[in-house]
Amino acid sequence: MDYFFSDRISGLKPSAIREILKYGSDPKMIGFSAGNPAPESFPVSEMKEISAEIFDTMASSALQYGITEGYTPLREKVKSRLITKFNSVSEDDEVIITSGGQQGLELACKVLCNEGDTVLCEDPSFIGALNAFRSYNVNLVGVKTDSEGIIISELEAALKREKKVRFLYTIPTFHNPTGKTLSLERRRAIYELACKYNIIILEDNPYGELRFKGKDVPTLKSMDKEGRVIYCGSFSKILSAGIRLGFVSANKALVSKMTVAKQVSDVHTNQFFQILADKYLEKYDLDAHIAKIRELYLKKATLMRNGLLESSKDILDKVNYTDPEGGLFMWAELPKGFDVIKLSQNLLARCVAIVPGVAFAADPSLPVSAFRLNYSTPSDEQIVNGTRIVVEEIAKLL
Amino acid sequence: MDYFFSDRISGLKPSAIREILKYGSDPKMIGFSAGNPAPESFPVSEMKEISAEIFDTMASSALQYGITEGYTPLREKVKSRLITKFNSVSEDDEVIITSGGQQGLELACKVLCNEGDTVLCEDPSFIGALNAFRSYNVNLVGVKTDSEGIIISELEAALKREKKVRFLYTIPTFHNPTGKTLSLERRRAIYELACKYNIIILEDNPYGELRFKGKDVPTLKSMDKEGRVIYCGSFSKILSAGIRLGFVSANKALVSKMTVAKQVSDVHTNQFFQILADKYLEKYDLDAHIAKIRELYLKKATLMRNGLLESSKDILDKVNYTDPEGGLFMWAELPKGFDVIKLSQNLLARCVAIVPGVAFAADPSLPVSAFRLNYSTPSDEQIVNGTRIVVEEIAKLL
Repeated sequence: MDYFFSDRISGLKPSAIREILKYGSDPKMIGFSAGNPAPESFPVSEMKEISAEIFDTMASSALQYGITEGYTPLREKVKSRLITKFNSVSEDDEVIITSGGQQGLELACKVLCNEGDTVLCEDPSFIGALNAFRSYNVNLVGVKTDSEGIIISELEAALKREKKVRFLYTIPTFHNPTGKTLSLERRRAIYELACKYNIIILEDNPYGELRFKGKDVPTLKSMDKEGRVIYCGSFSKILSAGIRLGFVSANKALVSKMTVAKQVSDVHTNQFFQILADKYLEKYDLDAHIAKIRELYLKKATLMRNGLLESSKDILDKVNYTDPEGGLFMWAELPKGFDVIKLSQNLLARCVAIVPGVAFAADPSLPVSAFRLNYSTPSDEQIVNGTRIVVEEIAKLL
Repeated sequence: MDYFFSDRISGLKPSAIREILKYGSDPKMIGFSAGNPAPESFPVSEMKEISAEIFDTMASSALQYGITEGYTPLREKVKSRLITKFNSVSEDDEVIITSGGQQGLELACKVLCNEGDTVLCEDPSFIGALNAFRSYNVNLVGVKTDSEGIIISELEAALKREKKVRFLYTIPTFHNPTGKTLSLERRRAIYELACKYNIIILEDNPYGELRFKGKDVPTLKSMDKEGRVIYCGSFSKILSAGIRLGFVSANKALVSKMTVAKQVSDVHTNQFFQILADKYLEKYDLDAHIAKIRELYLKKATLMRNGLLESSKDILDKVNYTDPEGGLFMWAELPKGFDVIKLSQNLLARCVAIVPGVAFAADPSLPVSAFRLNYSTPSDEQIVNGTRIVVEEIAKLL
């Protein structure tokens, strides 16, 4: 039969990153294209121990249906941690456990937007979020960014210009794909504009724990006096990505609607690993574990940046690499008109995978002369060899 | 701030069952209201053993991001099993792993329906599915059922009457909430009507493996020559509900769109338990395990039905209990106008929880003089005592 598909899904293409990730799983390939945490970031022996304990002492609840909001002891611990680390739970807030950070973004859009309503985002931004919003047929509008992140005057112009703006999606800390961190001043300005134009801020902070240099900047949620910030976090980069464990902190009324939406989506998040995460937080020192991940990523990020800069000596006037203070990503910017698609094809032929910047564009019909590099997944040796190859191929096309 | 919520979510109430389930977790309560599998249905020691093996031999892939379609070896095994047991994968079909059976239903609606399009369902039907469809603002239309299930002439009348009918949602085997199984003749008639009116059938079969008496009836999917049946299944009732593991078998084109929708929803299903399920299927005899669950549920269903019939001797002209051949549920029908809400309140006061039939109605504004009983969760003693109390309270209100 000929199929009819909904408008919301007809235009949605499989994520370009996911397609490129297929190359990343090829062991011969140097995978700068992934967004995977380093395997060393999983506390395997601790998780194994807790897992055996759960099977021995509470299997029948860990394998049974749970409540949609999430395993209560884990919600309490996440709440405490969010208060201590990010000041991101206020008195009228509630925490819900989600199936990865991704689900928080999708649920937020589902409950906040009718089709045709406007969502603002940084341009470029995380493709998984953009596609989640597109899947609800919203009017997705990118706001221009500069070397420091979202440009405040552009944000206000969009707020004035666009109709029915429901929320701004932002990754203020260790941005994906650029690795940039937004200054305190710009964060304050964003919050003020959100109040002035009465919109919600969807603050995505999956990398916030991974600062390896510089100083923490307060979250947007920490400035929130009006319950207008929905804060999304994740265990993917600090415990395990494959277990799909994330969380949302937001005003009770918002969490209540997101809970209803989650109930019809997957009833609840994997109960066994909710309990496992809870016991991990109880028995082990997550901060000590994170300190090791930070050290590892500092090393890898430094290796990548130095490799890039060194090989780029002769073209440094034409290429710019961001200098992330945390997270997983670096962003390479090239002169306008540079053919990044051609570059990525040439690199694939030499067994190096990158993600062309257009994959992160709010409007993918416009060219983007930049690409994303990930340093958490490849080995040190791959970083050294891969950066050299990347720059060689850039130079050929300049 | 005052929140704006999308139309699709504004009208959606938390599931009445979930609310009633809160009582179910009270240990003093006799919980006939749940939909939980018996804890004995979880192969705990086998799962523990496999879990340790995964941590020892393949932790870094089990805890890492996976692909949206699901863990390939598991998809292959599910496919083989679906072919052998239910003849429900054809040549042009593909299998995708979902985060519980629920996610398959939600994704199907998301990709098939624009807002305002029509979805047909049996009336009554599974509340989780109905709410998933409602959350996409569809025109949800219930089709009348009789003692054998959906009435074919009513289905055709709805197909003639309603506009933009995209699919029929049906649970033909061990229906939730009624426990009824649709005859082969009616299944054939449904498939013919689907062809005639060019609609998709969304066949939900989470209980299909749990037949404890009578003979298997072919699935609708097994009749499918045109790729118009989307078949949803689940590991919840045969392995574990808490791990949220389900699957969909459908034409490649449909699965491809559902994969895009799943990607933006939760990226992929918990990777660790996908691998665990795969290894369980490889190392153990799932059929032997299911045989034990069937025996258990036959015992519990018989105990419940006998308890109800015995206590109801004096009112058997006024009450009817279905006689399920498998699954988890029994359905009690009472004379028109009987106050089931009052009954369920009176029962709660006596520490027995049931689910009023109205919770499963396509149109919850109409009264339903029936209620659902679950026999998989309560202990044998609770079944004996609980059924006596249920009938005592029915008699008082007759």
